[in-house]
Amino acid sequence: MPVNLKPPQNLLPIRGIMLGVARAGIRKPDRKDLLVITLPEGARVAGVFTQNRYCAAPVQLCRERLSTQQAMALVVNTGCANAGTGAAGLAHARQTCAAVAQLLGCEPRRVLPFSTGVILDALPVERLIAGLPQCMANLAETNWESAAEAIMTTDTVAKGASRSVSSGSRHFSVTGIAKGSGMIHPDMATMLGYVATDAAITQALLDQLVRELADVSFNRVTVDGDTSTNDSFILIAAGTADGSQIASKQDPAYQALLAAMTQVCVELAQALARDGEGATKFVTINIEGGRDRAECLKIAKAIAHSPLVKTALFASDPNLGRILAAAGNAGVTDLDVNRVRLWLGSVLVAENGGRSASYVEAEATAVMAQSEILIRLELGRGTAAETVWTCDFSYDYVRINAEYRT
Amino acid sequence: MPVNLKPPQNLLPIRGIMLGVARAGIRKPDRKDLLVITLPEGARVAGVFTQNRYCAAPVQLCRERLSTQQAMALVVNTGCANAGTGAAGLAHARQTCAAVAQLLGCEPRRVLPFSTGVILDALPVERLIAGLPQCMANLAETNWESAAEAIMTTDTVAKGASRSVSSGSRHFSVTGIAKGSGMIHPDMATMLGYVATDAAITQALLDQLVRELADVSFNRVTVDGDTSTNDSFILIAAGTADGSQIASKQDPAYQALLAAMTQVCVELAQALARDGEGATKFVTINIEGGRDRAECLKIAKAIAHSPLVKTALFASDPNLGRILAAAGNAGVTDLDVNRVRLWLGSVLVAENGGRSASYVEAEATAVMAQSEILIRLELGRGTAAETVWTCDFSYDYVRINAEYRT
Repeated sequence: MPVNLKPPQNLLPIRGIMLGVARAGIRKPDRKDLLVITLPEGARVAGVFTQNRYCAAPVQLCRERLSTQQAMALVVNTGCANAGTGAAGLAHARQTCAAVAQLLGCEPRRVLPFSTGVILDALPVERLIAGLPQCMANLAETNWESAAEAIMTTDTVAKGASRSVSSGSRHFSVTGIAKGSGMIHPDMATMLGYVATDAAITQALLDQLVRELADVSFNRVTVDGDTSTNDSFILIAAGTADGSQIASKQDPAYQALLAAMTQVCVELAQALARDGEGATKFVTINIEGGRDRAECLKIAKAIAHSPLVKTALFASDPNLGRILAAAGNAGVTDLDVNRVRLWLGSVLVAENGGRSASYVEAEATAVMAQSEILIRLELGRGTAAETVWTCDFSYDYVRINAEYRT
Repeated sequence: MPVNLKPPQNLLPIRGIMLGVARAGIRKPDRKDLLVITLPEGARVAGVFTQNRYCAAPVQLCRERLSTQQAMALVVNTGCANAGTGAAGLAHARQTCAAVAQLLGCEPRRVLPFSTGVILDALPVERLIAGLPQCMANLAETNWESAAEAIMTTDTVAKGASRSVSSGSRHFSVTGIAKGSGMIHPDMATMLGYVATDAAITQALLDQLVRELADVSFNRVTVDGDTSTNDSFILIAAGTADGSQIASKQDPAYQALLAAMTQVCVELAQALARDGEGATKFVTINIEGGRDRAECLKIAKAIAHSPLVKTALFASDPNLGRILAAAGNAGVTDLDVNRVRLWLGSVLVAENGGRSASYVEAEATAVMAQSEILIRLELGRGTAAETVWTCDFSYDYVRINAEYRT
């Protein structure tokens, strides 16, 4: 059950970008499972991908093509990850792109493929290709909500976000969609996220931007600590807005756009945790007072990954020693626990190496009962801080992952 | 439900070592929750402890005392970990030792304290001390089974193992007990393990031995990836057997004893995974063909920690791409997945970066249905190997950890 998350409405169209979906029956009948996105000539695309060594065939192709080609289209299927599929998987991804290119009349190398679903299974490339004309037939700029639905797997809610932003007389739109619910611990980006703007941005700036955005959004979410083989986060600058190209971080338009894009990415990233498999709580973990951001992140992730912390959150049980045990476990070997302070919401739980004198369990129980929970740890050794978002760990996580596939 | 695990029977007494238990009502009424072990004069003790920065008060005292004192007694309570308890926790651990020392007529510094249970709660030291005379009243060399029961928390089965061993005319016994079911990812040793022999061994050799044994047994088990605040593994050489002291690794008696101790420790370590919280499967993960043991261990642990692998094991569903995804995720950045081969039992699942041509799903399904499962990964880049033992991840893990404490 998603935590305070509704399907997106009224996502802003991005001029020049069209989306078309199909029910191709790739794994299950009668569900949207295929998406084609077409880009205007001159659009720029940047991406970051999984660090998993078993990266999927489409990820390998995307990496190669993004560095050499100007993309004209993206094609995304669910139901099959086309990962752990060896040489045959690469051939299937190429066939898919060639079929899209033929329909659009462009070079196959200008098509970027994406897949998500079961690993090790062969991609049913005939069914996929047979579904492409259906995608082409409904290409439209207004199809973002439908596209968000077409990329879902175990997601229970489609995920999208938009912002419009102005800088002087220049006006831009930013719209993004994402999918992901389990196997969520993005290393560079999450299991499929696409964010587009009509602004024109240089390739160099876009390449930097995609990394910076991933770093403050998708790379700060975890559901189960498992990094997918197919994680891909794609940023598109259509270049169809009025006004000159953005070429410098000092451009005021860049700053305005960065703020809007960050909001869209953070909203999408949080949506992954809100719709984490079996989630009943959305949890924000703030680590403050660290020597550097790296150690703050280590501790935040150790807490976010702990099955004991996550099951206590599910039970609304303030068994909060588990949070300290996870923090003590994070590999920060010179952490002085006597300087660490732990808050649950606004309740000071622990200080001086033990329970706070002011702690009243009923107050902590009240915080634990909420659907949105803030865990805050002050390390007392510096000024660095980091944030990670996650969810709790429920019976339904086990049910979903024991039943998925079969 | 434990996997092929029965309570220990006929554990061999170790001459000179006596054990006494009590129902002290530390957390719950009417269960054995307090254990005193007394050692003969001249016994040597070595230990390894958790690397968690929030290590418990008794662990801090043990570390200090083991390096300077010859221990006369150990005192172990369940129900309260006395961790995250600051200065008060240390005072409580000292009070506990002083009370034991008074009853035995020895110096308080010669008593080693151990605790296991809920973190952050204050140790109910009055109830603990009130239970000590009951322990003293039933001290006996034949109480190992009862001691194994007294240290259980969420364990469903008591854990113990014995071996007798001969080297020429010299005969030794080795007996050990352990507890642990959740928060199991020992970093130096597990959540309380005690192994004793009647052999006489020099302190230098014993100190090496305790590390070597932990490394091939307790440090190779994981249930949920959470390292406890109270992990302690203690090795005792009572020195009451006939024959001279063992002072060298070249002594044939050392080799015989090492083999017996390794068997006892491995059996105890495996028992932790067999009785892992909610376990329905016992899983052995062998990684072979690595460049060094460190990278094999990384990959083994990544697989053993993956909630997706563990829920698939619970479901007996050969969704085996999850194993490859976990391996690809282990941080071995130059792993060539085209050289990796994966077996489930004797079924070759994957090679050349994809599914093996000989793979038949029905064969893998048959292996997954067994209660003892072997996952074997050949990396194809060297000769190093490592083994890790774990269990699956079931509804009951969530139930046990959502309900524990409340």
